[in-house]
Amino acid sequence: MNHQIIKFTPTEEQLCWTFGGREPVMEVEPGTILEVFTEDCFAGKVRSETDLVSEVCEFPSLNPQTGPFYIRGAEPGDTVVAHFIEIEPARDWAVSTTVPLFGALTSTHLTATLQDPLPEIVWIWELDRKTRQCRFRSNVGEFSVELPMDPMHGTVGVAPANLEVRSALVPDAHGGNMDTPELRAGVTCYLGVNVEGALFSLGDGHARQGEGESCGVAVECAMNTVLYLDLIKGTSTPWPKLESDKYLMTTGSARPLEDAFRIAQVEMVDWVASLCGIGRMDSYQLVSQLVESPLANVCDTNYTSVAKVNRQYLGDISALYGGAHQHARRVAADYLSGR
Amino acid sequence: MNHQIIKFTPTEEQLCWTFGGREPVMEVEPGTILEVFTEDCFAGKVRSETDLVSEVCEFPSLNPQTGPFYIRGAEPGDTVVAHFIEIEPARDWAVSTTVPLFGALTSTHLTATLQDPLPEIVWIWELDRKTRQCRFRSNVGEFSVELPMDPMHGTVGVAPANLEVRSALVPDAHGGNMDTPELRAGVTCYLGVNVEGALFSLGDGHARQGEGESCGVAVECAMNTVLYLDLIKGTSTPWPKLESDKYLMTTGSARPLEDAFRIAQVEMVDWVASLCGIGRMDSYQLVSQLVESPLANVCDTNYTSVAKVNRQYLGDISALYGGAHQHARRVAADYLSGR
Amino acid sequence: MNHQIIKFTPTEEQLCWTFGGREPVMEVEPGTILEVFTEDCFAGKVRSETDLVSEVCEFPSLNPQTGPFYIRGAEPGDTVVAHFIEIEPARDWAVSTTVPLFGALTSTHLTATLQDPLPEIVWIWELDRKTRQCRFRSNVGEFSVELPMDPMHGTVGVAPANLEVRSALVPDAHGGNMDTPELRAGVTCYLGVNVEGALFSLGDGHARQGEGESCGVAVECAMNTVLYLDLIKGTSTPWPKLESDKYLMTTGSARPLEDAFRIAQVEMVDWVASLCGIGRMDSYQLVSQLVESPLANVCDTNYTSVAKVNRQYLGDISALYGGAHQHARRVAADYLSGR
Amino acid sequence: MNHQIIKFTPTEEQLCWTFGGREPVMEVEPGTILEVFTEDCFAGKVRSETDLVSEVCEFPSLNPQTGPFYIRGAEPGDTVVAHFIEIEPARDWAVSTTVPLFGALTSTHLTATLQDPLPEIVWIWELDRKTRQCRFRSNVGEFSVELPMDPMHGTVGVAPANLEVRSALVPDAHGGNMDTPELRAGVTCYLGVNVEGALFSLGDGHARQGEGESCGVAVECAMNTVLYLDLIKGTSTPWPKLESDKYLMTTGSARPLEDAFRIAQVEMVDWVASLCGIGRMDSYQLVSQLVESPLANVCDTNYTSVAKVNRQYLGDISALYGGAHQHARRVAADYLSGR
Repeated sequence: MNHQIIKFTPTEEQLCWTFGGREPVMEVEPGTILEVFTEDCFAGKVRSETDLVSEVCEFPSLNPQTGPFYIRGAEPGDTVVAHFIEIEPARDWAVSTTVPLFGALTSTHLTATLQDPLPEIVWIWELDRKTRQCRFRSNVGEFSVELPMDPMHGTVGVAPANLEVRSALVPDAHGGNMDTPELRAGVTCYLGVNVEGALFSLGDGHARQGEGESCGVAVECAMNTVLYLDLIKGTSTPWPKLESDKYLMTTGSARPLEDAFRIAQVEMVDWVASLCGIGRMDSYQLVSQLVESPLANVCDTNYTSVAKVNRQYLGDISALYGGAHQHARRVAADYLSGR
Repeated sequence: MNHQIIKFTPTEEQLCWTFGGREPVMEVEPGTILEVFTEDCFAGKVRSETDLVSEVCEFPSLNPQTGPFYIRGAEPGDTVVAHFIEIEPARDWAVSTTVPLFGALTSTHLTATLQDPLPEIVWIWELDRKTRQCRFRSNVGEFSVELPMDPMHGTVGVAPANLEVRSALVPDAHGGNMDTPELRAGVTCYLGVNVEGALFSLGDGHARQGEGESCGVAVECAMNTVLYLDLIKGTSTPWPKLESDKYLMTTGSARPLEDAFRIAQVEMVDWVASLCGIGRMDSYQLVSQLVESPLANVCDTNYTSVAKVNRQYLGDISALYGGAHQHARRVAADYLSGR
Repeated sequence: MNHQIIKFTPTEEQLCWTFGGREPVMEVEPGTILEVFTEDCFAGKVRSETDLVSEVCEFPSLNPQTGPFYIRGAEPGDTVVAHFIEIEPARDWAVSTTVPLFGALTSTHLTATLQDPLPEIVWIWELDRKTRQCRFRSNVGEFSVELPMDPMHGTVGVAPANLEVRSALVPDAHGGNMDTPELRAGVTCYLGVNVEGALFSLGDGHARQGEGESCGVAVECAMNTVLYLDLIKGTSTPWPKLESDKYLMTTGSARPLEDAFRIAQVEMVDWVASLCGIGRMDSYQLVSQLVESPLANVCDTNYTSVAKVNRQYLGDISALYGGAHQHARRVAADYLSGR
Repeated sequence: MNHQIIKFTPTEEQLCWTFGGREPVMEVEPGTILEVFTEDCFAGKVRSETDLVSEVCEFPSLNPQTGPFYIRGAEPGDTVVAHFIEIEPARDWAVSTTVPLFGALTSTHLTATLQDPLPEIVWIWELDRKTRQCRFRSNVGEFSVELPMDPMHGTVGVAPANLEVRSALVPDAHGGNMDTPELRAGVTCYLGVNVEGALFSLGDGHARQGEGESCGVAVECAMNTVLYLDLIKGTSTPWPKLESDKYLMTTGSARPLEDAFRIAQVEMVDWVASLCGIGRMDSYQLVSQLVESPLANVCDTNYTSVAKVNRQYLGDISALYGGAHQHARRVAADYLSGR
């Protein structure tokens, strides 16, 4: 295989704050390998315990995306294939923080109460990229612990439908800020195309993240990421899907959280029915007993729920999306061995 | 160790349909091993594809519980320790079904719409207790698959607070129908006592269940279950907690689903803060990056969300609940080796 | 007409804290006029700005009900008719307060956050029963205003179905703590019977209340209330309904709030379809353009939404519930004129 | 007073489907009277019972707006004043319909279930503009009724913040598709400015609408509308507010519905605190007893809740927004008398 490799690091001016509404940074052919740099969600401005988001950041300059990439030939009704070959922290530190009136365990601008906000506190996490560990230190009490790095992208998506432009902080049917730890290296993400060229972007690297992202902020870090970008013509994907060597995954992003759950589960029921050639009610039954349902985020404008099914129980599903994941895995292996 | 072993199989008249509001079937001392039989959630009345729940079952005779057991010395403010030594399907078949206007992917009596209900269909699952597999067969399309058995109890709880009596179909702060697959053998469940004697019951065995229990019904089967029942005086447990050799787990049951999530996460933040001796905001940060958040049910009167933290990252927590889980594990090992 | 008039004032021991689970205070025949006293929701214990609920009240001794009354002949499937002839504040003051972690504009035990609770503050309202005004005085800033009295009962209901006993703080299909300002004198409330004798109770008088009861507490006062209690055999009422000279009203109590809304609207669509003899979809259309949708409470265990339709647009609906409201109005007129 | 009067009827190409993302149709000075035509939400394409939305309309060409108008001098942090002088149906018919998987009493693309959608049915309403009545006729059963016309605009707003462009079907902090019957003639709407020129648009006329817009579609009609557009410099308005001669009103748009309620109520608490010069907790108390809480929509991308307070209880609030409403009322009176 011979795939074009394009390296791209955005300048500060090129940082992109939305899905849609922005000129592409470049055009790429389907079947391209991208080596990109993504800034952290604070655009690198929070670097110590004294850099408060409320002081050093300003709306809408949050969650900068690298992109958008215009994919030649992509049209509404097609599906973008984004396989993550490698997601590597670009620095030896990462940052997390509380943000006033943001997060799952506080009132917010949408879940409005009359209470005082929680205090704004920054934690700097040390990343040991050799041992693949991130170190947490408490402010109150002497406690320190290393958690395994599990790098992921919180945000990946395309331009939305219906002429909309959405903030990079929002997850929805176009992808965006889904914040699922399942979006790690080795995973293929399928995104439905809404506009010509798809306008694919990504960002919001996390060295690791708990499911639900309770405090609203993960272990945020800049990333050097390699991904393989491809296109499937004539197949639509209403909500983003993920595929790994072990799992098929669907996502739903909505509020309340049960609606996000419902979307992901209905998507999975329909997917399994089609893959296994069984009735929709049969699939409802099978998925009900088989599915894993980890939460992604319960803090963003929409909440995101994931449905995961272990592919080994579904029979021969190699034709899924034309074998796009297996193909991408081979491209990835070639790339990694050729380095 | 020398623990009393009590065997109990309820008669049909002894089946219990509520938490609270019922005379105990017996009194037990803290430190008792119970060998109990639990009927399936349909009281054994759905045995073939033609036994429709709407025809053979009648409210409130659903989800029969074995119990309640009056635990001597239990008073409000104490905590019941229920360690599951063994959960074994009592038959070589299990059943699942759709129930009109019940489940996550249909309108219901609470999420009311004007649409027609989904069809009512029964699936009989074969259980191979030697190979530990449950076999699913589709009605439409030729598809069959074996899924691993992973036996659990959907319902375990005590009498509720505030003079209430709740249907066995409801999960809430007293436990009840939480429907989490995490309640498997090897796990200790902590339940706060609300009334004298606690009035502990259990039921709703599942040969396996997906996370969220989308269709509202798991792979339902009668169970032969062995559990160790103990009591911790003077320690309260506002919402049910679980402990395994690997994980600490909290639960929250509420609607909308984000509220169930919030409860479980706040409980975990406070638990970790206390165990690690760190500030509440530190714990918020640590849990946000560490937690796993599998859904339990998104179909019952309240939805249930679980927060799981791998205990290896929390330092020495052996004093947790006075070492109740480790103690129960030793009791279980003795029991199993003595058989 | 000749209706038995029964006067009942509960002793402190007779105050009832639940729906269901309690022996009746007396048996009454259908067609009885009850003159009852109801204590305020704090059982009269909060009488000045220094009586904090968290200090002077204790769970479950909140929201005392007067009752339950056993209605002779009432069986599951029947409907209780409770017409409110008069609701009069029993004292010249009323009380409101904030309660820590209770209310719509604060985090709560169910909508759990890590924030501090709001301060606990008591306001004593002066009631001028001649001018029908209640006077509010601010603590901070010199501001005082008189609002019109609009007395109502926040809580009215019967024993629940499914063997349950519910706290008097909970609204659900059995009625209970719905907290709608629509439950004023002149209104008939229809409640479905779940157990023999129905076990009707009422309490939680409010001199007035805003829609939604944001802070969780209305202008709470003891009441002298006269109501006419009747029974309709063989007609079921799944969710409480109200009827006034001007409006038909349905209620739904659930979480999230949209589910409470859905229940009330579906009930209204079905009611109007049946009354007007039109298709369900026609009724969906008509109700969509006609309905008023005031909120009742957004603070209790379940939220309550009301759907109101002006009866003048529905044609001749005099046969509704056998003309029970018109009959009750005549009974009320007789009673009031005979005094 | 001497105010410029501008008449504007959009061509088909000028119909605007979003808030933001569109060149203004014209620039206007603050203090301008606009006489505009707005098409109905189906762009006039549904004209008989056989014109099904799913056949004659196509996303994103739904809910066309008239505008956007660039208001000279408007900058972020300012407030647009839009006073509705007159809202008059432009035709002698209006239309309503069910739309597959849209509405409050059906599953939707966000509240996803496996059930079949409701049937798609169109109702044509006759408007008698002299008697101010709209006539409904049932399809099933012989039933016909006249409901009073109460013309309103479902959609009014400005370009959103954060670089976003939102579909005209969405209500949010920028206004948009709030669908409240309170937006009738005589009312002033305050909208916070997010971008230079504000980019004000309006549309979605309803001859009348029930609260909540259950079926998702009101009595939709094209409108001839006169409004007075003004600007308040240096005063921000985070969520849209309304003012009438009788009421102050706040709005919140979010999901779940309780969040929409919370936003509107918190906005009202803060508004009343500021107007009456009382503490925030005092205002929480006063608003809790005073507020009316009619629902606007429970069917759109965000649900909208309104909080209404009768201004007579708030003391002298004539300085509110610099007396903008009173000024606009005088402009309106001049305009109407000068015709």
